[in-house]
Amino acid sequence: MPSHASLLERYRAVRARSEELAAPLSAEDQAIQSMPDASPTKWHLAHTSWFFETFVLEAGVAGYRLFHPAYRVLFNSYYQSVGEQYTRAQRGLLSRPSQADVAAYRAHVDRCMEALLEKEPDLDARVCDVTTLGLNHEQQHQELILTDVKHMLGQNPLLPAYRAGEPTPESAAAPLSWVGYAEGLRQIGHAGADFAFDNECPAHRVFLAAFELASRPVSNAEWLEFVEAGAYRDPAHWTSDGFAWAQSRAIDAPLYWLRRDDAWWVQTLAGPEPLRAEDPVCHVSWYEAEAYARFAGARLPTEAEWEVAAREVPVAGNLAESGHFHPRASQRGGALPAQLFGDVWEWTASPYTPYPGFRAAAGALGEYNGKFMANQMILRGGSCATPASHIRPTYRNFFHPDARWQFSGLRLAR
Amino acid sequence: MPSHASLLERYRAVRARSEELAAPLSAEDQAIQSMPDASPTKWHLAHTSWFFETFVLEAGVAGYRLFHPAYRVLFNSYYQSVGEQYTRAQRGLLSRPSQADVAAYRAHVDRCMEALLEKEPDLDARVCDVTTLGLNHEQQHQELILTDVKHMLGQNPLLPAYRAGEPTPESAAAPLSWVGYAEGLRQIGHAGADFAFDNECPAHRVFLAAFELASRPVSNAEWLEFVEAGAYRDPAHWTSDGFAWAQSRAIDAPLYWLRRDDAWWVQTLAGPEPLRAEDPVCHVSWYEAEAYARFAGARLPTEAEWEVAAREVPVAGNLAESGHFHPRASQRGGALPAQLFGDVWEWTASPYTPYPGFRAAAGALGEYNGKFMANQMILRGGSCATPASHIRPTYRNFFHPDARWQFSGLRLAR
Amino acid sequence: MPSHASLLERYRAVRARSEELAAPLSAEDQAIQSMPDASPTKWHLAHTSWFFETFVLEAGVAGYRLFHPAYRVLFNSYYQSVGEQYTRAQRGLLSRPSQADVAAYRAHVDRCMEALLEKEPDLDARVCDVTTLGLNHEQQHQELILTDVKHMLGQNPLLPAYRAGEPTPESAAAPLSWVGYAEGLRQIGHAGADFAFDNECPAHRVFLAAFELASRPVSNAEWLEFVEAGAYRDPAHWTSDGFAWAQSRAIDAPLYWLRRDDAWWVQTLAGPEPLRAEDPVCHVSWYEAEAYARFAGARLPTEAEWEVAAREVPVAGNLAESGHFHPRASQRGGALPAQLFGDVWEWTASPYTPYPGFRAAAGALGEYNGKFMANQMILRGGSCATPASHIRPTYRNFFHPDARWQFSGLRLAR
Amino acid sequence: MPSHASLLERYRAVRARSEELAAPLSAEDQAIQSMPDASPTKWHLAHTSWFFETFVLEAGVAGYRLFHPAYRVLFNSYYQSVGEQYTRAQRGLLSRPSQADVAAYRAHVDRCMEALLEKEPDLDARVCDVTTLGLNHEQQHQELILTDVKHMLGQNPLLPAYRAGEPTPESAAAPLSWVGYAEGLRQIGHAGADFAFDNECPAHRVFLAAFELASRPVSNAEWLEFVEAGAYRDPAHWTSDGFAWAQSRAIDAPLYWLRRDDAWWVQTLAGPEPLRAEDPVCHVSWYEAEAYARFAGARLPTEAEWEVAAREVPVAGNLAESGHFHPRASQRGGALPAQLFGDVWEWTASPYTPYPGFRAAAGALGEYNGKFMANQMILRGGSCATPASHIRPTYRNFFHPDARWQFSGLRLAR
Repeated sequence: MPSHASLLERYRAVRARSEELAAPLSAEDQAIQSMPDASPTKWHLAHTSWFFETFVLEAGVAGYRLFHPAYRVLFNSYYQSVGEQYTRAQRGLLSRPSQADVAAYRAHVDRCMEALLEKEPDLDARVCDVTTLGLNHEQQHQELILTDVKHMLGQNPLLPAYRAGEPTPESAAAPLSWVGYAEGLRQIGHAGADFAFDNECPAHRVFLAAFELASRPVSNAEWLEFVEAGAYRDPAHWTSDGFAWAQSRAIDAPLYWLRRDDAWWVQTLAGPEPLRAEDPVCHVSWYEAEAYARFAGARLPTEAEWEVAAREVPVAGNLAESGHFHPRASQRGGALPAQLFGDVWEWTASPYTPYPGFRAAAGALGEYNGKFMANQMILRGGSCATPASHIRPTYRNFFHPDARWQFSGLRLAR
Repeated sequence: MPSHASLLERYRAVRARSEELAAPLSAEDQAIQSMPDASPTKWHLAHTSWFFETFVLEAGVAGYRLFHPAYRVLFNSYYQSVGEQYTRAQRGLLSRPSQADVAAYRAHVDRCMEALLEKEPDLDARVCDVTTLGLNHEQQHQELILTDVKHMLGQNPLLPAYRAGEPTPESAAAPLSWVGYAEGLRQIGHAGADFAFDNECPAHRVFLAAFELASRPVSNAEWLEFVEAGAYRDPAHWTSDGFAWAQSRAIDAPLYWLRRDDAWWVQTLAGPEPLRAEDPVCHVSWYEAEAYARFAGARLPTEAEWEVAAREVPVAGNLAESGHFHPRASQRGGALPAQLFGDVWEWTASPYTPYPGFRAAAGALGEYNGKFMANQMILRGGSCATPASHIRPTYRNFFHPDARWQFSGLRLAR
Repeated sequence: MPSHASLLERYRAVRARSEELAAPLSAEDQAIQSMPDASPTKWHLAHTSWFFETFVLEAGVAGYRLFHPAYRVLFNSYYQSVGEQYTRAQRGLLSRPSQADVAAYRAHVDRCMEALLEKEPDLDARVCDVTTLGLNHEQQHQELILTDVKHMLGQNPLLPAYRAGEPTPESAAAPLSWVGYAEGLRQIGHAGADFAFDNECPAHRVFLAAFELASRPVSNAEWLEFVEAGAYRDPAHWTSDGFAWAQSRAIDAPLYWLRRDDAWWVQTLAGPEPLRAEDPVCHVSWYEAEAYARFAGARLPTEAEWEVAAREVPVAGNLAESGHFHPRASQRGGALPAQLFGDVWEWTASPYTPYPGFRAAAGALGEYNGKFMANQMILRGGSCATPASHIRPTYRNFFHPDARWQFSGLRLAR
Repeated sequence: MPSHASLLERYRAVRARSEELAAPLSAEDQAIQSMPDASPTKWHLAHTSWFFETFVLEAGVAGYRLFHPAYRVLFNSYYQSVGEQYTRAQRGLLSRPSQADVAAYRAHVDRCMEALLEKEPDLDARVCDVTTLGLNHEQQHQELILTDVKHMLGQNPLLPAYRAGEPTPESAAAPLSWVGYAEGLRQIGHAGADFAFDNECPAHRVFLAAFELASRPVSNAEWLEFVEAGAYRDPAHWTSDGFAWAQSRAIDAPLYWLRRDDAWWVQTLAGPEPLRAEDPVCHVSWYEAEAYARFAGARLPTEAEWEVAAREVPVAGNLAESGHFHPRASQRGGALPAQLFGDVWEWTASPYTPYPGFRAAAGALGEYNGKFMANQMILRGGSCATPASHIRPTYRNFFHPDARWQFSGLRLAR
């Protein structure tokens, strides 16, 4: 979807993509919640519609009537300003609204949104801004649909496939090398008129000491050395919280790794496959990533270091027509780190904190990002499951340090 | 289904009833588990088939091939002798096997079972016995389908209906009176050739002091007095464990009671309805039942007292053709307690212990009942959700004292 | 202490015994709570005084002033009628009141109680009755002091001794034989003017089928066969709840058994000692006892069976002058089961339920026993830690089926 | 204690101070653990001795024999490289080793340490360094003794006093003003030969935007506005994790605040006292501090901002002879923030992360700080309970964001 497309075109494309993602899933698949952190597909489809209904239609269209009064609570994720929320951990108890009810809800919201967006370019700025936010929001949930479905199917002893042909991280065949950066004052953060979340702002200067960044993410082969060295049971490599986490949950490999007889397999969206040594390691927690870096005599990069490196990589020209992001070829051309975008999210050493001068958006939408600035760690770059138009160098993703069901890997720094 | 029907006829009737019970439910409804004690409808449908496959077909039919090797674990409830079991609390994580897969499984088992049962009367005795056990087992799960679906829909803020027209407890309009029984040696427990579970055996003598039994179950109107007297917050009426249970869970009314404005409503299988004062109270735990009895200056009957009274009530002639049990009219004729069968399960004062001389069945089927003789309380009589042919005076139902999602009420004694 | 002693003499003897039990313990030892089920020695010493203060002095002595107003809450165990209780699980957080404060409290209560009891025989009946109850109550806490101290020291990696010379269960050297009892109507329960708890009343008839009782408790040697057969990991022997309990807590031997190199040791009140094969096994839960009985092809006796056997054993003449109960010699004389009293508490097959016609005492003292009649199992006989004058054939002790820190063993029946 | 004192003099002074802190406490007081985060005083006294025994005597004195082999495990806090550790949450179960045993342990270690230190100036550098580290370590535990005792006594319904006359935060009577700092590159972190922990190193440059710091900490009067505005129940002011924390624990005021009738009191080391409006607020968590700052239209300072301000305040000349730190007068002289040191620890906006170029110490002592760099927030400045010689501008204290039993307050920035 080219960036000059009209808002209506973009709306239709993003909404259609969500439904395309749900297409391989039965009503049963879409109803189940495999853990409190994950949500049923059906819920994602409804919640993203609720977002447009609540923040665009109800807030901005005179006379708009709610599709169903109970949905205000059922599909509110965490917006306290909007009112009560249905308990997150119980989203999987809802056989009703059915898949068909949710489809009707989406269709209703789409009709009203499309009628509104057809007025472009006479839309007021708030409608444009919130609709754009809603599309970015829905793209985030598109990635969550994939991660949550992968988790749900991965808990099933039958190890079912979602579908074949989904993008996967590209193999990191090249030997690891180090790319150097000189010390100095650098600017990071978002500036300009393009869309960005409030937490990417404001752009600001940071002073960085000289550092080196690995030319590619850590691979499965490299991670196997960690496993085989017994490092999961050796506290010397871990933070205290990380080691307690790994021991109490008997963690001894990345999520979705399966040992069958003497070989390692990995559960993918296409079902179980033999582990490929040269793929980037994926589905590790920050605790594991940090421990690996220590084991490897290195460290995780800070988010500022990562962004400084990423700004030198040409991004905009590499948007794949497929709707996914494949800028790898060009990245490999020079002395630039490769695979920064679109393979695995890369854990950084940086806790999620506000940038100097950060101001949350006003009103309920101020709850979008700011209130999560505690106990979470920053990931950068975007994964194979991230919509391509959603990826940019300033993007700040964040999860708790024990989360591993995201497409999360790591890159070393020193 | 008349008791002289052939085993094949009975097999077909019972199996068809399970599917009829599932008919109003969508695939989504059938996949969800609302708490660890409950199971998805789909799982009940599969597990009852697994029972026939494991204990009749695999054990007794040469050359039988399992429908799917993974089902041996997935649909084993608690038979350690058969092998591993899939974790009970995670039955709701299984979108696959799908509803259609389970239907195919049932059809496969039915074909094999029917081919076998057509050989009657040349079947060996073990096949007859285990098939009969399997049919009684499936009847138990038919009641569980209703209780578990009621719970699942009852957790849903939309309060959906299962379907209208399901049997409900009959109103207990008559004033409560007391029916007296003299002291003496009495026999309880099952004797004879009819089917009974091992835990109903052997028949044996007990000495009972004189006692009186209430002529009918406790009604909603009577229970309201308990609620309105603040008895849920007054430890004087409760066992210590019961009061701690009620306080820690903020229990202040039977399950499914809803206060709307100033009126009491109750969630039923047909959706929310105004509370009917003269219905038997239902969905109370043993803790609540025991506390109510103390509050009312009475006590719960022992299971021996209950059975002595029930043996005087004509049961066999009152099997309703509908497939449910409605012997109420005749029971009201004389000085007999009424509504002993087929309204609500009645909590007794008796913990679930083995009868003198009890012997569990041999092999894996010995796990059916015996290993649960700890920490559970006996209920007697059968509810409106119990298949009529499954009800008999010697029947011992049992649940933990905090369970309230069953159709459980009480009758007073003194 | 002869039973014809005056109430004042008995009061002084019982109170002195409590302090004698605390004598080997430092202030630190007396302050610590090793688990929520156990209490600090200091708390036992204060609570037993609170009992006399609350139910005798405050209730019956005009103008009595409380020693300290906060003690009403701090040392109330579970009497809701008296008012609030300090949280049981936090009794070990109280460094104050200090050991010295508690000693002063005891001395104050003793002065007032002794002044009152000196008026005998002009005391009113309620004072006599409640004082007698208070002395029996304090005897119960004397056993709890020993069990709780044993637990507290047993949690300590240094495995300290309490003191040498405490009574231990006598060795059960004789081969096990079976003593038969004919079927018939028998009377159990307390009748007469001697002291008994309300839960031992009323005496009543029960019909018992013929049964046999083992001539002595199960020994350590016999239990070792259970351990060495891998029975702790074999679900075939266990109730479902029992097996889940043992697995989730990794239970594989009685409490206080320690394997050192290739030998079994046991932590005793005198510190670690080699396991003596012929001692009665002790510190097993009901779950374990029930599983062992099944493993041994037998069962636990009901409390009625146990009491019928115990009534034939001469008890009264065997009160040892030592203050402990050693009636073993005479019991071994004939075809009587031996070691029924004063070695280990014997788990029975009977849940703790009210006797027919049971009435709890009026007022707050009605909370003493009745409200615990849920989820607990009966033990009979008394242990080496039970004061001799506290032992009688009708005595009903009760604990939850997972409790094992009491001096609890078992005897087989069939 | 002047900084030019010999190591032996400093050793004696620090060790004596620990015992002086324990002096008001009974053996019972010293044995109890009020929560898993806190430790018994007795354990602190033993662990600080274990530190010298393990890292100085055992590591560096030929032929040194351990005082007691079990103490290696019992008093190891978290040094995995040294071996196993006794479970932290069970430190309060240890009545033995007794208070007297611990005193003997301390005396033994002191004799050996003093014999060693008398060899100064001929000590090898490692002994000097590790002894200095051990003294700083013991000073940290001196503050913990006070915080943990305050917590233990604060849980006691009798609200006992530790002792009168302990230092308290000085009143912050002056109206709040703002002190401005220009943007620019600044240096923070420790450089030079004086003692500092590894986590204060290396000194490094950071770029700071212009900021303002409040002239004094937030006061009780100001915090009362937050309480009385209902801000504890208004999610608008809180991070998501913080609000969930406050709601789930029913937090509605700082720890140790007590409402009696209509007045606020506060539990202090001297017992309950009326809340003083002008004292710095103390015993708030990071969650509360962050919420308050948002409520007040401000934010917490970063640790870099705090340190830049603190470096301008003269510290060294203000060491009070009392052994505590009272540099307030001089700080108030100019346009400098006051009360940066020695009143309350000040929560910052900075998570605890490694400084650029951080290297943990080699060997077991590398576990001292580095492995805790996850999930914790930085506090700066030192409290009234911190030994004066332990306070410096570069000092980084850290606790989890829900911790509130430390002497923790806050200062606003913007």
